Amino acid sequence: MPDTLRFADAESDPSIPKDEAKAQEAELRAALLKAQYDRLAKADRSLLIVVAGIDGVGKGGTVNLINEWMDARHIRTMAFGPPSDEAQQYPFLWRYWRQLPAKGRTGIVFGSWYAPLFDALASKNPKRGKIERLASSICDFETLLVRDGVQILKLWYHLSRDAQKERTAMLLSDPETSWMVRPEDRLVAKNFKRVRRAAGTMLNLTDSSLAPWHVIPSADERMRAIATGDSILQALHDPPHKVSALAATGPWRPSSESASQEGGRRLRRLTQVDYSVKLAENEYDDQLAHLRGRLARQVRSKAFEKLPVVLVFEGHDAAGKGSTIRRITHALDARQFRAVPVSAPSPEELARPYLWRFWRELPAPGELTIFDRSWYGRVLVERVERFARPAEWRRAYQEINQFERQLTDSGILVLKFWLAITKDVQLERFRDRERSPFKSFKITPEDWRNREKWAAYTVAANDMFDLTDTSYAPWHVVSSNDKRHARVYVLEQIVKAIDTRLAQ
Amino acid sequence: MPDTLRFADAESDPSIPKDEAKAQEAELRAALLKAQYDRLAKADRSLLIVVAGIDGVGKGGTVNLINEWMDARHIRTMAFGPPSDEAQQYPFLWRYWRQLPAKGRTGIVFGSWYAPLFDALASKNPKRGKIERLASSICDFETLLVRDGVQILKLWYHLSRDAQKERTAMLLSDPETSWMVRPEDRLVAKNFKRVRRAAGTMLNLTDSSLAPWHVIPSADERMRAIATGDSILQALHDPPHKVSALAATGPWRPSSESASQEGGRRLRRLTQVDYSVKLAENEYDDQLAHLRGRLARQVRSKAFEKLPVVLVFEGHDAAGKGSTIRRITHALDARQFRAVPVSAPSPEELARPYLWRFWRELPAPGELTIFDRSWYGRVLVERVERFARPAEWRRAYQEINQFERQLTDSGILVLKFWLAITKDVQLERFRDRERSPFKSFKITPEDWRNREKWAAYTVAANDMFDLTDTSYAPWHVVSSNDKRHARVYVLEQIVKAIDTRLAQ
Repeated sequence: MPDTLRFADAESDPSIPKDEAKAQEAELRAALLKAQYDRLAKADRSLLIVVAGIDGVGKGGTVNLINEWMDARHIRTMAFGPPSDEAQQYPFLWRYWRQLPAKGRTGIVFGSWYAPLFDALASKNPKRGKIERLASSICDFETLLVRDGVQILKLWYHLSRDAQKERTAMLLSDPETSWMVRPEDRLVAKNFKRVRRAAGTMLNLTDSSLAPWHVIPSADERMRAIATGDSILQALHDPPHKVSALAATGPWRPSSESASQEGGRRLRRLTQVDYSVKLAENEYDDQLAHLRGRLARQVRSKAFEKLPVVLVFEGHDAAGKGSTIRRITHALDARQFRAVPVSAPSPEELARPYLWRFWRELPAPGELTIFDRSWYGRVLVERVERFARPAEWRRAYQEINQFERQLTDSGILVLKFWLAITKDVQLERFRDRERSPFKSFKITPEDWRNREKWAAYTVAANDMFDLTDTSYAPWHVVSSNDKRHARVYVLEQIVKAIDTRLAQ
Repeated sequence: MPDTLRFADAESDPSIPKDEAKAQEAELRAALLKAQYDRLAKADRSLLIVVAGIDGVGKGGTVNLINEWMDARHIRTMAFGPPSDEAQQYPFLWRYWRQLPAKGRTGIVFGSWYAPLFDALASKNPKRGKIERLASSICDFETLLVRDGVQILKLWYHLSRDAQKERTAMLLSDPETSWMVRPEDRLVAKNFKRVRRAAGTMLNLTDSSLAPWHVIPSADERMRAIATGDSILQALHDPPHKVSALAATGPWRPSSESASQEGGRRLRRLTQVDYSVKLAENEYDDQLAHLRGRLARQVRSKAFEKLPVVLVFEGHDAAGKGSTIRRITHALDARQFRAVPVSAPSPEELARPYLWRFWRELPAPGELTIFDRSWYGRVLVERVERFARPAEWRRAYQEINQFERQLTDSGILVLKFWLAITKDVQLERFRDRERSPFKSFKITPEDWRNREKWAAYTVAANDMFDLTDTSYAPWHVVSSNDKRHARVYVLEQIVKAIDTRLAQ
C-alpha cells in the first residue's frame, strides 16, 4: 500500500464520547487483567509492547495508562534514550536483548529499536544503505524473538497535523502543562509531511505477519486509551503463531547437498581431517611459549583496546576444549577476559530466547569472551537429544549466522574452533579420566551416553559446518588427537587473526 | 599485632620439593573437587575468594590454577580493573554487589574492593579520613555478606623483597615471559617498605573472624599453589559461621525504648498521626497540577542530570502506594525513571543476600528509582510472617542504615514515605476493591490474612521508624486516610527535597 495510506483513519482524528468510553474502559480493564493473569499462569510467551509514534501525541501518558490498567507488578517499562557510552561499544541490538522479559511477563518498550531507523528515514538526506541495514536487522531480530516465544505488539500513535498542532498549543498555553511539550514536539507540525512519509515507509519496511504494526488514533485521549487497551487485549488473547510451518521453510538443507566442497574452500567435514598430525614435546614447548608471548603482547597493546574478541570452542567430549582454553587464558590479564562454560540453561535462561544468555556475555572493546561450548548447542546437543524441535534447530542456522553477522558488523572478531578427535582417542581419554582422582569428575554417565550417539553428533557437526561457515565467522576444524598440535594450532590462528585486525 | 609481623613466615620464602608437591597436589585436587560438589549440592552458601597481594607474585597464574583444579563450570572469575564511567556513577560497592555468585557457587574476585583501600594506604600522603571510610564500608559489606550466606576467603600473596625482585628479573630476562611483568611489578622492590607497611595496615584494619585474611607464601610456585589449594579446601569444609549469636548483639532495641521522642523531631509513631487531615477536590486539582508542573520542570533541568533519586513507598495494604506513585510518574519522562514493584523474591534473588536485588535497581545520575515496597520488607513482612529469623531481621536495621548511608554518601537523594491509614479505612478500601471488576485483582486472601496481623505490622513499623529514621535518609509518615492529601503531601516533599539538592 502507498506508504501513508494506512494513516488515513488515524488522521480523521476519531473521538469517542465520554459515557461510551467509560463503559468500554471498565470492561476493557477487567478483561485485560484476566488476560494478563491467564498469560502469567501459562508462562509460555512474553509480550513486548513497542510504543512508538510521532512526537507530541501523548505516548508517555499511554505508558502510565497501561501500568494503571494492568497489574504493574508483572510489567516492566523499558525506556531507552540515546545509547550510553557503554551501549555504544556493543552491537546496536545489545541493550534490547539484555532486557527481554521472561515468559509470562510483559515489557513496554519506549524509545525502541525503531528510534534509529525512524531518525534515518526522517533525515533530510536519507542514506539508503543504512536504512536497509537497520530495517533488515530489525526484521531478523523480531522474527527470531517471535519464533522463540516473545510476542511483539507494535503500536504507532498517530493523528492529523492540525490535531497535533492544536494539542501542543493547548499544553503550551497552560504553565502547569507546558512542560509536557518537548522541543521535538514543536517541530512536528513544521515537518509533518516528512515525518509522516518516514513513518509510512518505516511501517511498510517492518510490518510482518509475525510482528504487525497497529496504528492508534491519538487525537482524542479517550480514543487513544481504548484503542491501546483493545490492541493489547487482542494480543494477549492471540494464540501463539503457527511458526513451525514458517520455520520449516528455513535455509536448512540435508548434509548430502553440502556446499562445503565448493571452490577452494578449506576442508570442513570431520572425515577429511588428518588425525595423524603430531607435534614433538620440545617443539611444542618452544612454539607455545613463543605464541603465548605474542598473544600476551598483542592484548596488552594500545591498538587492542579497541578490539572485542569472541572465541568459540566446540568438539566432542574430551576433545581438549578446557585445556586448550587454559593455554590461551594464561597469556591474558584476568581483567580482560571471561571464560564462559556453557552447560544446560538455567530457568532464567529457559524463559527467554536461547541467544539471550550469549548476548549477556559479549565482550566490550579490549576484552575477550571465550565460550567453552556455545550457541551451537542449539544445532548440536539440542538437535541430537531432541531438546529442540526440528523446526527450531533448522531455523537456528540462519539465526546464528545473523547473530554472528551482527557481532562482526559491530567490530567483534569472531573465531570458531572445532577440536576434532577420533572415537578411539575419546575412549582412551575417558578411561584416563576415570583413573585420575581429580579428573574423574569430568566423566559422567552422560558422557558415555553421548558417546553412543557419536555418529549423530558427527552428522550434526557436518551440517553445522556446511551452514554456518561464513566469510565473516569461519570455522576452524582442528586436528586434536594430538593435544600439543591442537593447542599450538589454535593459538596460532588467534594470533594471526588478531594481527590482521590490529594492522587494519 | 605489629602491622607487618604477619608477613614474617611468607617472607622467609618457604618452598616445597617437587615430589612432595606432586603428591600433595594430587590429593588436594581430588579433595577440592569433592568439597566443591558437596557445597553445590547443599547450595546453602556461596564462596567468594578474594585474590590480592603485592604486585609481581603471580596472582594471575593462581586464578588460572584454581580454575584448573576445580570444576570451572561452577566458578566465576570476577576481575575488576579501574571502574568504568558507568560504575563511577554508583556507590563504590555497586559493581561488586552486582556480580555476587548464587549459593553453591564460587566466585574468584581479582582486583577486589581492596584495591582502592590499598592504593589509599600505599600513597605517599595517606588520607586518614578516606582510609577509615573505605575500611569501614568494606567491613560492613563483608559482615553483611557473611551473615547472609556468602563465605569470604581472603588471600594475600606475599614474598620477600629479594624474592620479588628475583622473580621479576627472571621473567624479564626471557623475551617469551617478559610480558608477564607489568610496570607496577617493577616498582614493588623500590617501594617495598611502603607497600609492605600498607599491606600490613590493610590486613589489620579488615581482618575479622567472619572474613579472615590468609597470607600465602608466594616465592615458590609449588608452595603458592599448595597453600592456595589448602586454604580453599579449608574454607569449603568450614561449617557456616555461628552468626546468629553475633547478630543478636546488633543494635535492635524493643520499641518501648524508642529514640524517636528525642528533641524536636517530627512524630514517628503511627499512633501520633493525625488521620483526619483532608484536602478538598478543587484545591487538590490545583495543587496537584502545580506540584506536578514543578517536578516536571525540575527533572528536565540541566542540574538534575547529576542527581540520582531513590523514592521508597511503604504502608499497610491499600494505603494508596500505587496510585500515589502514578501521580509522580505522570510528571516524569519514561526514559528517566523505573518503578520497581517489590514482591516475593525470585529463586535467583533468594540465592543471594536480600539487598542484592535492590543494588541492581539503583538509579544513575539524572534517574529516579521508585520502590513500591522495598528492602524494609526485611523488618516488616519477613519479621511478621517469620520468613526471616529474629537474628536476621534484628541485624537488618543496621544493615539497612549502612546501605542507605552508602547511597547518600555517593550522592543519591533517598526519600522514604510511609503512607499511614487506619484499620477501618483499609476495610473500606478492601470492600471497594472487591466490588470493582478491575480492582478485585488487588485484593487476595493474603490481604485479609495480613489485615488480621495489623497490630504486629504496626509494632514492626514503629520499630522501623525508631531504628532507621536517620538524618541522611529520614522517614516521612504521611497521613493517608484522605488520598488527595497524601498525594499532594508526598509530591510536595519530593519537590522540596529536590529543590534543596539542586540549589546546593
